Amino acid sequence: MKVGDRWYRTIWPSEDGGAVEVIDQTRLPHAFEVVRLQSLEAAAEAIRVMQVRGAPLVGATAAYGLCLALQEDSSDQALQHGVELLAATRPTAVNLRWALGEVVAAVGPLPAAERVAAAWRVAARICDDDVAACRSIGEHGLELLRGLARDKGDRALNVLTHCNAGWLATVDWGTALAPVYLAHDAGMNVHVWVDETRPRNQGAALTAFELGAHGVPHTLIADNVGGHLMQHGMVDLCLVGSDRTTSRGDVANKIGTYLKALAAHDNKVPFYVALPSTTIDWEIADGIEEIPIEERSPAEVIRVAGRTKEGIDSSVEIAPPGCAAANFAFDVTPARLVSGLLTERGVCEASTVGLRHLFPERAVVISGVH
Amino acid sequence: MKVGDRWYRTIWPSEDGGAVEVIDQTRLPHAFEVVRLQSLEAAAEAIRVMQVRGAPLVGATAAYGLCLALQEDSSDQALQHGVELLAATRPTAVNLRWALGEVVAAVGPLPAAERVAAAWRVAARICDDDVAACRSIGEHGLELLRGLARDKGDRALNVLTHCNAGWLATVDWGTALAPVYLAHDAGMNVHVWVDETRPRNQGAALTAFELGAHGVPHTLIADNVGGHLMQHGMVDLCLVGSDRTTSRGDVANKIGTYLKALAAHDNKVPFYVALPSTTIDWEIADGIEEIPIEERSPAEVIRVAGRTKEGIDSSVEIAPPGCAAANFAFDVTPARLVSGLLTERGVCEASTVGLRHLFPERAVVISGVH
Repeated sequence: MKVGDRWYRTIWPSEDGGAVEVIDQTRLPHAFEVVRLQSLEAAAEAIRVMQVRGAPLVGATAAYGLCLALQEDSSDQALQHGVELLAATRPTAVNLRWALGEVVAAVGPLPAAERVAAAWRVAARICDDDVAACRSIGEHGLELLRGLARDKGDRALNVLTHCNAGWLATVDWGTALAPVYLAHDAGMNVHVWVDETRPRNQGAALTAFELGAHGVPHTLIADNVGGHLMQHGMVDLCLVGSDRTTSRGDVANKIGTYLKALAAHDNKVPFYVALPSTTIDWEIADGIEEIPIEERSPAEVIRVAGRTKEGIDSSVEIAPPGCAAANFAFDVTPARLVSGLLTERGVCEASTVGLRHLFPERAVVISGVH
Repeated sequence: MKVGDRWYRTIWPSEDGGAVEVIDQTRLPHAFEVVRLQSLEAAAEAIRVMQVRGAPLVGATAAYGLCLALQEDSSDQALQHGVELLAATRPTAVNLRWALGEVVAAVGPLPAAERVAAAWRVAARICDDDVAACRSIGEHGLELLRGLARDKGDRALNVLTHCNAGWLATVDWGTALAPVYLAHDAGMNVHVWVDETRPRNQGAALTAFELGAHGVPHTLIADNVGGHLMQHGMVDLCLVGSDRTTSRGDVANKIGTYLKALAAHDNKVPFYVALPSTTIDWEIADGIEEIPIEERSPAEVIRVAGRTKEGIDSSVEIAPPGCAAANFAFDVTPARLVSGLLTERGVCEASTVGLRHLFPERAVVISGVH
């Protein structure tokens, strides 16, 4: 996507080779800075502190993390250590483990001398595939938006989104926001309600930044507001991303997604989840029971980061000194609350049948396993 | 309630007479400061900027605001002007208009010379009645909590609350938190999940402060978290306050309450609303259609107030410069999602029948009107 007058992906190999560069998402929206990752440890730390985040981008960063590891030491032990270190950074998104598996499958059988070059090729392929998948999600989603806009005349089509599932969450384009960008570019009157997404405010910091940079009309709201908007007919569609989707269509996504899905269901507002199929965990069915939910530092709840009136990056504590806080990072929306899954192959029902219909090759694998 | 070694109400006439003193709630939790209100305008401004907030306390402050107005000028015109100015400060809570009505009914028929003293008497009575009502809500609520704790053994009874419906929202004791204080004092093992309550963070700033000062175990959470907790059996009861309750039991409360009610309903968690009957608007039935929802400044969403690491009061902007924001302050929870209303007369079903049963004298008034 374009930032200022330059096109960016969120991650790319450095021009001099041997390193990876990423946009530091902890500095947005107030500063746009590129960070160079030169080692396995740096890649793991970037994922852990969320300089990069979003399930697809975390997967891509993990793949590059293994490239950096193998560059230092291409032995089996080093590969194994890299996989373990990266897999432990964040537990919920399944793309991380999927991407590590792709690299291991490609380089594991090769002699050590050939592994580095092969790993860089796999990581580049993972990125290119993600861009293509997101673009395709955008095109299928555009049809969905066109259908919903049909009865609106000149009035804006109001989309509510939670967290950031835009290009910053992927390598490019985004998942939930890809259809919005295509619709805006096609001249549709589309407006986005942006949930600020406490505690880390990815909506305020990232989604509002992205939409603003692209010129898409949007309004920031507290996470508490969506239900009221839906009660009053001010939302035509909820569109969110996913960090892990089970084989029956349960969806883990940023904490608070479930509450919006309940409100959508109660007010008959369509609730769609956009995801590349790399986000599907074919091995589990019950998301509430089986998806591990990351718990992050209470400090993220207590202390809010931003910029002061004087233009200085700072943070403020909002609670009394010593206040205890809990910080669950994701929740699970049961498939029954999801109107449809929007994938690179099109839209399907959030169900075992729906997903197997769209991904028949996976249905074979599953029935083989069970 | 006790703060440090002194007992406080949230509002009281100054010792020297002729003014009112309140705890400045915009300075909590980082500073405990008392502000002196000496004029009608100061009282109106204190309500508007939320130095005082919470439906019952707003009502009490409005009553004292009329005292201050009449002290300057006890004419009919001055009374009328005071009522209009105060009524316009905040639209959603009905206690404001109810308290103004109480003062007008008492002083209107009196000669100008007798009005000031009468107004101070009415305002004091409104405060004392609120304290008694909240204490009574606490006692009825304690029975509710005892019933729910019966099967828990040694494990804590987990109560989730939204916004601040504690003593800071009333003259003393609070509504939703009154039963919690009594339960804690009675030796029950009770723990409170405190929704931070964006955008103004009344949960983090006020509820956490109150509970901490009283020694009640509590954990601060982002507003997004309650659904996840309820899915995993970590909430035994949701207990919130109300700014206006309709004659059929629809409840307007701080924005986001509706989302928690949906989650409670979806997970079979009891959802109770605590309110003094002064919060009931007997003249309307459909809360979503008929209750005006206050819209406040977008700046409250964009800019978060707190204390820096250096101990300085400050605020930080969390969104890109120029970002649009919307700030609806309340939402309406339909009666169908409410397990029961907890009033000073006991618990009733959230329905026309339930409310008329508990307040039969109002049933007569209503049937006379319609």
